[in-house]
Amino acid sequence: MPTLDQQTIDRITKRGVAQIIPEDEFIRRLQEGRPLRLKMGFDPSRPDLHLGHVVGLRKLRQLQDLGHELILIVGDWTAQIGDPSGASETRTMLSAEDVRENAETYMRQFFKVMDPNRTRAVYQSEWFGKFTLSDVIRLTSHFTVNQFLHRDDFAQRYAGQRPIAVTEMLYPLLQAYDSVAIEADVEFGGTDQLFNLLVGRELQEKVGQRPQLVFTMPILPGTDGVRKMSKSLDNYIAIEDTPRDMFGKIMSLPDDLIPVYFELLTDVPDDELDAIRAAMGPTSPSANPASSVIPAKAGISSLNPMDLKKRLGEELTAVFHSPGAATAAREEFERVFQRRETPEDIPEVAVGPTSPAVVSRDADGFDADLSHLLPALNLAASRSEARRLLQQNAVQIDGERPDGERVRVPYGALVRVGSRRFARVVRG
Amino acid sequence: MPTLDQQTIDRITKRGVAQIIPEDEFIRRLQEGRPLRLKMGFDPSRPDLHLGHVVGLRKLRQLQDLGHELILIVGDWTAQIGDPSGASETRTMLSAEDVRENAETYMRQFFKVMDPNRTRAVYQSEWFGKFTLSDVIRLTSHFTVNQFLHRDDFAQRYAGQRPIAVTEMLYPLLQAYDSVAIEADVEFGGTDQLFNLLVGRELQEKVGQRPQLVFTMPILPGTDGVRKMSKSLDNYIAIEDTPRDMFGKIMSLPDDLIPVYFELLTDVPDDELDAIRAAMGPTSPSANPASSVIPAKAGISSLNPMDLKKRLGEELTAVFHSPGAATAAREEFERVFQRRETPEDIPEVAVGPTSPAVVSRDADGFDADLSHLLPALNLAASRSEARRLLQQNAVQIDGERPDGERVRVPYGALVRVGSRRFARVVRG
Repeated sequence: MPTLDQQTIDRITKRGVAQIIPEDEFIRRLQEGRPLRLKMGFDPSRPDLHLGHVVGLRKLRQLQDLGHELILIVGDWTAQIGDPSGASETRTMLSAEDVRENAETYMRQFFKVMDPNRTRAVYQSEWFGKFTLSDVIRLTSHFTVNQFLHRDDFAQRYAGQRPIAVTEMLYPLLQAYDSVAIEADVEFGGTDQLFNLLVGRELQEKVGQRPQLVFTMPILPGTDGVRKMSKSLDNYIAIEDTPRDMFGKIMSLPDDLIPVYFELLTDVPDDELDAIRAAMGPTSPSANPASSVIPAKAGISSLNPMDLKKRLGEELTAVFHSPGAATAAREEFERVFQRRETPEDIPEVAVGPTSPAVVSRDADGFDADLSHLLPALNLAASRSEARRLLQQNAVQIDGERPDGERVRVPYGALVRVGSRRFARVVRG
Repeated sequence: MPTLDQQTIDRITKRGVAQIIPEDEFIRRLQEGRPLRLKMGFDPSRPDLHLGHVVGLRKLRQLQDLGHELILIVGDWTAQIGDPSGASETRTMLSAEDVRENAETYMRQFFKVMDPNRTRAVYQSEWFGKFTLSDVIRLTSHFTVNQFLHRDDFAQRYAGQRPIAVTEMLYPLLQAYDSVAIEADVEFGGTDQLFNLLVGRELQEKVGQRPQLVFTMPILPGTDGVRKMSKSLDNYIAIEDTPRDMFGKIMSLPDDLIPVYFELLTDVPDDELDAIRAAMGPTSPSANPASSVIPAKAGISSLNPMDLKKRLGEELTAVFHSPGAATAAREEFERVFQRRETPEDIPEVAVGPTSPAVVSRDADGFDADLSHLLPALNLAASRSEARRLLQQNAVQIDGERPDGERVRVPYGALVRVGSRRFARVVRG
């Protein structure tokens, strides 16, 4: 394994890190140069990865590249319970079939970031499939209800008299036992996992193993800029989003997320990161243009938020798709949303003679009733919404704004609502 | 099964009962005349029965005599955890050997009260031996930590920041599962078991069984008159105590326990019980002699506390030993403690020529050094205690109090210290 210079150690232990417990021992063990067994869990009831997950995977990948091994725990048992840090419902068991399919889905996404040659996936079934009541009694005897009820989410729920199933006390214990089963050296998780990771450390110590180190990473805010990125909050960027969606969602981020996304999701050098932070910082970049405050640096073409987001979007899209797809996504974005051109893949909708939108027609086009046409093109939900859009002057046909519901529409016309919704009318 | 008259129903549901949940359903099911499956648990780490246990056994025996079947649960699994209502330590597993031996000890005592033909003993191992983690998860999912922490003892410990092992949450659940495993109709326990019994009722309902009825019995106060009778508090009367000890402990009871012992441990008729209660009641019997307050009834020879305790002692000793042993125990008690006579089985201690107690001797006796003799007879712990006893004038030799350490002691002499400790000196 390579010897580590201070720069590498800093990159691993300072950037994109919430807490390392204990940090000095972690650095010492990195420097020892023996492969560490890195543990990360995966919930097979949630196989889709988003950028929130990528934060941790990037950190693990750095360590894989230094020769350490990742043990990925497929949580087919904990998935039954559901992490009480999230929803509070006890879930039903996934079938073995579901677990295998979901694990495949997960791996396909996972290996876009991770090194398969330094990854070993193990199923909890290996040990929990043969767990007896004696094992459960032994495991539960090491921990107290008091200590568990001090965990933030439990404490809040208990204080609020919201139910906590006895089963939920088992969740941290099973996760902790995973560490014993694989003799983990370091366990990784978001800051919301800190309690569970420490339970693993404590259990290993109690059963006579060397206690695992605990490595937590910051939680990535979702596209709403407020809450944790999460599929259930619908504020996520999936790593299987299309290039256009991925790029577009990044362009729609609140500006103040730009530095944290650069920090946690890219390898942009620290000095550039500092410049980005300063530009997006408490001084609003629109009030004081960044270029006048921050000196231009080599490699930083612009500190304008729009340009930074394009760069971020293109960089991430390139990782999860390809540089070509990323460039195309950027170019299409610029065409549609910036130069107000039309996107390339506008849906073509055939309008036939019996459509209520067609008042009368000839070879080149038809007299249209727009209150019917907009819903038929999927540009309005109803006739009343169509009328509202017309009153708001939000509708264009080939660039012209109609002044009533009845207008001539030539076949091939581009109908546009607002700045982002389009359809092309073809003869049906 | 016999039809039940109101008197029988009252005897079962009113006397020696704390709570029946729900009482009307219990009476209805008794009257249906189908054998009920009565459940009671036994902790094989505590095989010795005392009168506190007998309270419940007597109630169960009444029901056996009506044709109902007792299922005795040998708690070889719950014994590992220990009922958190008692000590808070998680215990170590008993070996299968220990469990079997303790179960034998228990049964030997148990069948002094119970009918073996209507008793079936089952080990929890039958179901918990093959319990999987899935079973544990399913079981724990039915109950909440919140509800368990409302149980009195947990609530107190939690409020007092005293540790509650996660394992202890399993105790009521395993006990509840026993009810499911045997499809119990009624579970019995002391009032301190109410919570656990209700968990069983709730679990049966949740898994689709007819929920068991719950029958609690009052807790018998120990010989200190204050706390629950318990081996660990050393305030118990074991059912394997010798006739003399059993009788003697009952004679030493505080007077105000007399009515409750008669109520819970004997079949004394209700009207006599009322008379006893009135005699021992708030009006002190010594200040207002009972005979002047309570009219004499047929069968009640005396309401003097000493006489009542003798009757209680003789009756209970007769149950656990024999009427003859009971009478002998009473007669010996009267001889020793009341007429200040000597008991019949005084230890005989041989004193040989080389004993430091013997200053010089002849055929009939010896000149004794009492500071050596009393320890040699096990009547004092040391020479200094012996001297203290002599100074306190607490020593008699054949009824005479010696006026120094040096006295003549004939062989066959009875040496007595205080009112209760004796030894007979023989030539050695």
